[in-house]
Amino acid sequence: MSCKIPENIKLCSEEDLGKEFIERVIGKTPTYVCVIGNTETAKIPGVSAAGANPDITDTTPAADMELLHYGRCKCIEGVPVTPTGVPTPGIITMSATKMSKMPIFVMNAGVKVKPHVPYFELDGSPGEDIRTGKAVKNAERTFDRAVLAGKALAKISNYLVIGESIAGGTTTAYGVLTALGYDAKGKISSSMIDNPAALKENIVQEGLRNCGLSESILKKDPMMAVEALGDPMIVAAAGLAVGAAESVPVLLAGGTQMAAVLSVIKGMDDSVLDNIALGTTRWIVEDKSSDLIDLVSQIAKVPVLAADLNFSTSKYDGLNVYEKGLVKEGVGAGGSSIAAMLMSDGKINARNLLDEIEKNYVRLVSRR
Amino acid sequence: MSCKIPENIKLCSEEDLGKEFIERVIGKTPTYVCVIGNTETAKIPGVSAAGANPDITDTTPAADMELLHYGRCKCIEGVPVTPTGVPTPGIITMSATKMSKMPIFVMNAGVKVKPHVPYFELDGSPGEDIRTGKAVKNAERTFDRAVLAGKALAKISNYLVIGESIAGGTTTAYGVLTALGYDAKGKISSSMIDNPAALKENIVQEGLRNCGLSESILKKDPMMAVEALGDPMIVAAAGLAVGAAESVPVLLAGGTQMAAVLSVIKGMDDSVLDNIALGTTRWIVEDKSSDLIDLVSQIAKVPVLAADLNFSTSKYDGLNVYEKGLVKEGVGAGGSSIAAMLMSDGKINARNLLDEIEKNYVRLVSRR
Repeated sequence: MSCKIPENIKLCSEEDLGKEFIERVIGKTPTYVCVIGNTETAKIPGVSAAGANPDITDTTPAADMELLHYGRCKCIEGVPVTPTGVPTPGIITMSATKMSKMPIFVMNAGVKVKPHVPYFELDGSPGEDIRTGKAVKNAERTFDRAVLAGKALAKISNYLVIGESIAGGTTTAYGVLTALGYDAKGKISSSMIDNPAALKENIVQEGLRNCGLSESILKKDPMMAVEALGDPMIVAAAGLAVGAAESVPVLLAGGTQMAAVLSVIKGMDDSVLDNIALGTTRWIVEDKSSDLIDLVSQIAKVPVLAADLNFSTSKYDGLNVYEKGLVKEGVGAGGSSIAAMLMSDGKINARNLLDEIEKNYVRLVSRR
Repeated sequence: MSCKIPENIKLCSEEDLGKEFIERVIGKTPTYVCVIGNTETAKIPGVSAAGANPDITDTTPAADMELLHYGRCKCIEGVPVTPTGVPTPGIITMSATKMSKMPIFVMNAGVKVKPHVPYFELDGSPGEDIRTGKAVKNAERTFDRAVLAGKALAKISNYLVIGESIAGGTTTAYGVLTALGYDAKGKISSSMIDNPAALKENIVQEGLRNCGLSESILKKDPMMAVEALGDPMIVAAAGLAVGAAESVPVLLAGGTQMAAVLSVIKGMDDSVLDNIALGTTRWIVEDKSSDLIDLVSQIAKVPVLAADLNFSTSKYDGLNVYEKGLVKEGVGAGGSSIAAMLMSDGKINARNLLDEIEKNYVRLVSRR
């Protein structure tokens, strides 16, 4: 069996496995699940651009979910923006899911601000600052609940696309990957143009010192690694993927945060890895300040796909800046774009997706 | 098109519509959603048998959901029982969903005790005693959220089976049906052998006096009727059905409580009624102290189906008593049995379902 890979999907690593994955899901309706959470880590100055200021990052995941459901936010005015006013990548996800009529579900791994939408509740808690070395409570309980939800969703889904919204999430991803023994230094992405890699390294090192656990213990136990240095999203997304990928394909939709999710999946149940791919944006795979492909290759033979989005022709500054390396990914923007292209038989491509994104951008941003 | 109706499913009213409904769903995997809630009404002495004593009825819905997910309860020892020790009808649902491998989802409309399982959260509140005339807060918000969840589930479901677990729910059903102008007197079922109809009538009348709303206002506004005299389950189940039945069939799984849900559906969006059926047990349709068929016929041309379960041959007292009119229905026992029979191509019938129920009964009850 062989199918035509849509023109705006790039196979970035493990190309044969990537083609096989695409063959299993092309033409099918996916179930998109966005896992949301908060971590106090986002409030460390300089860590996150997922909010106009550190305190408002608490509202970003809730606002993103409202955007996906209603086409506008309810818990805040306008949409989440970076400190310089660039809008959330949720606009991309909203446009892709709307064009394709993809079903959308939300899973709350632990947020401080609840979205005004229905969501799967796992009874997890928001995450603490990872510098404490005690970042997440009851990781295994959250994981187990997410596994059950993943199994149930898999029974009625062709495949799952798992996205995330959690401000500060690349720093916690760095923490988990490091705790699990992967070489993540200089390889973690950032929502900013100038990747604050040294700041993140200091944060992770402080957390490692404070967690009171040895390298060898952390390395063997993904739940301990998340409890020490992770965030609630990572453990819920990993559980969801483990539960679902037993029976249906799973596309992890995100950048280096999804590498951290993958590292937890591998540590908990490596038998599902051959049913998993990672889908992101071109801006992530071309980013010179991070290295998603290398991170994934350290973890497992899992293909990386990228949506070949290009905003350089856009007449809107807030979209143009994606080409300069701001934002890049989030809310499963890349993976949901890939899934929309795959389910539409070529009808949705990077060009008309940009048209839809610009339409929503004008409606949501320019008029504020 | 014509299909063979499984032998243990009875067409109890609107037979032609019932056959058409069955033809649309036979052989297909349903999505079972159990809507849970609490109402303080359950604690009025003599109202509910869904718990060994009034106070413990708070835990019954959570315990039922754990039973469906794990085959045992977590928040209580053993399983929920009536004051005389008869186990929850959740054992029937658990047996039907297990035999058929039906996917199970939980929707929290407003509980005091959260189940140890993943669930859809609508951010509703537990219900108050309906004698206050102020039974439910923010009914419309809960309804709207449930509509969104129903739309999303419908996109990935062949059809929905909607069950409930809420102690005291027949009394609140009586309240809503009365508020909406239906003649429910002497027609509401009970989990007890001696239906406390006079007690329920007094409770409803007290609520009507205290709600401060006229008959004509209540009759026109299902959300006001639920806020005055209902419970959170009714409004969430109605929203879920309205959202889903736009595009897929919906089987309301329950007795007279589902008649109340149907009355709210009709008041909110009567365009979906032709995609709805009600599925219950033989014990409900044969009950002489209530009249489900008449209630449904007052509301809409919606077929009533019944699972022809028969526990008279069972050697276990706790199952035998169903034939005497105790428990009768709950946790979508009848509807999930019907759905299991419909999806199994005749493999699941009343006989082998009883075998499975007895197996689970012995494991869960006899050994306590």
